[in-house]
Amino acid sequence: MTTEDQGPDILCCPPLADHVLSEGDAVRLAAVLAALGDPVRLRIFSIIASQGETCSCNLEGPLGKSQPTISHHTRKLAEAGLIVGERRGRWTWWQVVPDQLDALAAVLGATVGADG
Amino acid sequence: MTTEDQGPDILCCPPLADHVLSEGDAVRLAAVLAALGDPVRLRIFSIIASQGETCSCNLEGPLGKSQPTISHHTRKLAEAGLIVGERRGRWTWWQVVPDQLDALAAVLGATVGADG
Repeated sequence: MTTEDQGPDILCCPPLADHVLSEGDAVRLAAVLAALGDPVRLRIFSIIASQGETCSCNLEGPLGKSQPTISHHTRKLAEAGLIVGERRGRWTWWQVVPDQLDALAAVLGATVGADG
Repeated sequence: MTTEDQGPDILCCPPLADHVLSEGDAVRLAAVLAALGDPVRLRIFSIIASQGETCSCNLEGPLGKSQPTISHHTRKLAEAGLIVGERRGRWTWWQVVPDQLDALAAVLGATVGADG
């Protein structure tokens, strides 16, 4: 399922080191981190992020994976709001959602408190 | 197993959006992201990050989890180089490794290329 033009769900959580995460925020944030917590998905994401809009037909070669495997992983990334896809003919073209990556970096990037 | 005073293994990878991650870098980075990709571990991490050095005996209450469960999760975070522990008597005191969190934010935080 591609997310198409409806905007993805962007993370909202304040920096991790600022306060104790609520259970709800932790569940949402963990889902995005878990989507990236897989080597194949990370490589797919880095291909799309570094090359710009990318056809799923151009992911097989660099990854050495079959199209069903690639579809499984792109779906996970899309569900996490990290990429969005547009179907053109038989292929989906993917691009990164910069706001989601920025939100994730902001959540992680806080200066750590007491122990500095 | 706590990492004690020997420095943890800090991520080195360049920003995700700069180039296509190698398989080796993807495996290393995915391991750190997967360690945070769990709601209980994220909450443990946010408690330690926001409160500074924290005794594992003070994690049971806010999380409503047993000590073996907490030990399991703190071990995963420590193996990922995100926290370090020091044993004092029967408890381990944990603190965040700011360099690892900064490295993670830097890897994720790059401006995304072509589609911006």
